[in-house]
Amino acid sequence: MRETELVRKIRSLASVRSRDRSIVRAIGDDAAVLRPRPGEDLVFTSDFVLEGRHFNVSTHRPADIGHKALARSLSDLAAMGSEPVFCLVSLAIPARLPPSWVSRFYKGLLALADRTNITLVGGDLASFDKIGVDVVCCGRVPRGKALLRSGAKQGDRVYVTGELGGSAHGFATRRGAAWRRHLRPEPRIAAGIALRKLGVSACMDLSDGLSLDLVRLCAESGVGAEISPYLPIARNASLDEALHGGEDYELLFTAPSHMKIPGKIAGLPVTAIGTITASHVGKVRFAGRPLQTKGFDHFL
Amino acid sequence: MRETELVRKIRSLASVRSRDRSIVRAIGDDAAVLRPRPGEDLVFTSDFVLEGRHFNVSTHRPADIGHKALARSLSDLAAMGSEPVFCLVSLAIPARLPPSWVSRFYKGLLALADRTNITLVGGDLASFDKIGVDVVCCGRVPRGKALLRSGAKQGDRVYVTGELGGSAHGFATRRGAAWRRHLRPEPRIAAGIALRKLGVSACMDLSDGLSLDLVRLCAESGVGAEISPYLPIARNASLDEALHGGEDYELLFTAPSHMKIPGKIAGLPVTAIGTITASHVGKVRFAGRPLQTKGFDHFL
Repeated sequence: MRETELVRKIRSLASVRSRDRSIVRAIGDDAAVLRPRPGEDLVFTSDFVLEGRHFNVSTHRPADIGHKALARSLSDLAAMGSEPVFCLVSLAIPARLPPSWVSRFYKGLLALADRTNITLVGGDLASFDKIGVDVVCCGRVPRGKALLRSGAKQGDRVYVTGELGGSAHGFATRRGAAWRRHLRPEPRIAAGIALRKLGVSACMDLSDGLSLDLVRLCAESGVGAEISPYLPIARNASLDEALHGGEDYELLFTAPSHMKIPGKIAGLPVTAIGTITASHVGKVRFAGRPLQTKGFDHFL
Repeated sequence: MRETELVRKIRSLASVRSRDRSIVRAIGDDAAVLRPRPGEDLVFTSDFVLEGRHFNVSTHRPADIGHKALARSLSDLAAMGSEPVFCLVSLAIPARLPPSWVSRFYKGLLALADRTNITLVGGDLASFDKIGVDVVCCGRVPRGKALLRSGAKQGDRVYVTGELGGSAHGFATRRGAAWRRHLRPEPRIAAGIALRKLGVSACMDLSDGLSLDLVRLCAESGVGAEISPYLPIARNASLDEALHGGEDYELLFTAPSHMKIPGKIAGLPVTAIGTITASHVGKVRFAGRPLQTKGFDHFL
């Protein structure tokens, strides 16, 4: 199948899904055209999903890979408290893969896109030795209201949505609900929007593991954090998986201690797991001792 | 070098370059934040640059690869008649490459970014078997003024900026000005903006070769095209390289026959190469005969 035909196929899979009038022109030109509304900010993120790094063709079906590629970027939109608007998908694939692989990839991706109300407006296609996907997502927030990593203050409480370690446990066991959770992570869009409306002080998504991601939030905010041993650990997962396991895609956030945070947000349990400190800047302490950073680092 | 340190390094290379107050938040959070101006449209494009496909490490220095990765996306912004605003760069690299490779890559990319006034606001880093880069660019145009591929009408003249076949000739010979041209393509930003102000009817960039790209423009516009044998061929390049060679990154555009098109636009020669026809929709004829499409297709 030629590139032109592949693009036509993807365009027809993606077409007439948008109910968003801010998208003036989508797939088919040199670039997509967006007409933003005044009074809003747009947020942008890009994320790779690479064969052998983030998935394997032996264990992940094309629709799973499409789902995951979009979910990773959407999770960043969730972390900013933003509402999804559009995405660009760049897909590199070995020429040996059949055209049906590409269709199934896009069907998996577009099913999640439909559910989260985001429009595929463009991207790139190329042949390569291995499968590589880069997804760029754009979201909108009311002007000045994006949730940043840099807003945590001394005395704030630290919270997480959902449970920790489930994805790492699924990856280790390849079985049951934890494995399905690993294959099909769910971006916490509704929770992110709810947290933005509550006005929490800082937020990020947990993609590389709590111990590494919380260090990043602390570094951006110029603070430290003390976390408690009572973490919301996913069923069957270990403490180690909860502290250091990647790809839970839950939201990690901070809020002033006087702010009332509901026990459930957008249907997800919310747990207070610690406190922001002015000392030990850029460091995390766990049960009174320094916590070693063992989350996923691409270059370690 | 850890991912966190790499990001810090890139952030410092990219920092305080932006004079664009519409960029509220750049590298360092889950996503970048943009505050668009009312009355303008934003255009978005993404382009892969992949090892073994678009470059080889034996012939391309890291700064060349950085330059080319950004140039490809900027060329799409030029084709829309837009002014560059910001870019996201996702870089996958083998862990064996030294940190200096990454710095030199970003220096090459950021030198072009500086010159074209575009701000690096984010992206992703990952380790992979081969080098892969995906660059997303955002540009702005006055509301409703983006140059599309779909505006060509019967009787319009077809034009190109600059010369054709130089990049393909450079790739074949690896020598002299043509090779330097291949290594460091120049996105036609100023020419694209000038064409938008003139109000030409359709425009795209020449990335995959005239014979293939003109077919794409014709298909989007629902027209055909007849091109003349008198093409502006780059020095030493062959007619075949001019007709089918990729990566010239010149602009291909159409304008009504009554519109006065200057012989030079933004310092580049402009040549009338043909006419839009109502017959042979989606086809190109050359010197009175059907022109075979031989441009670069990733999936042929």
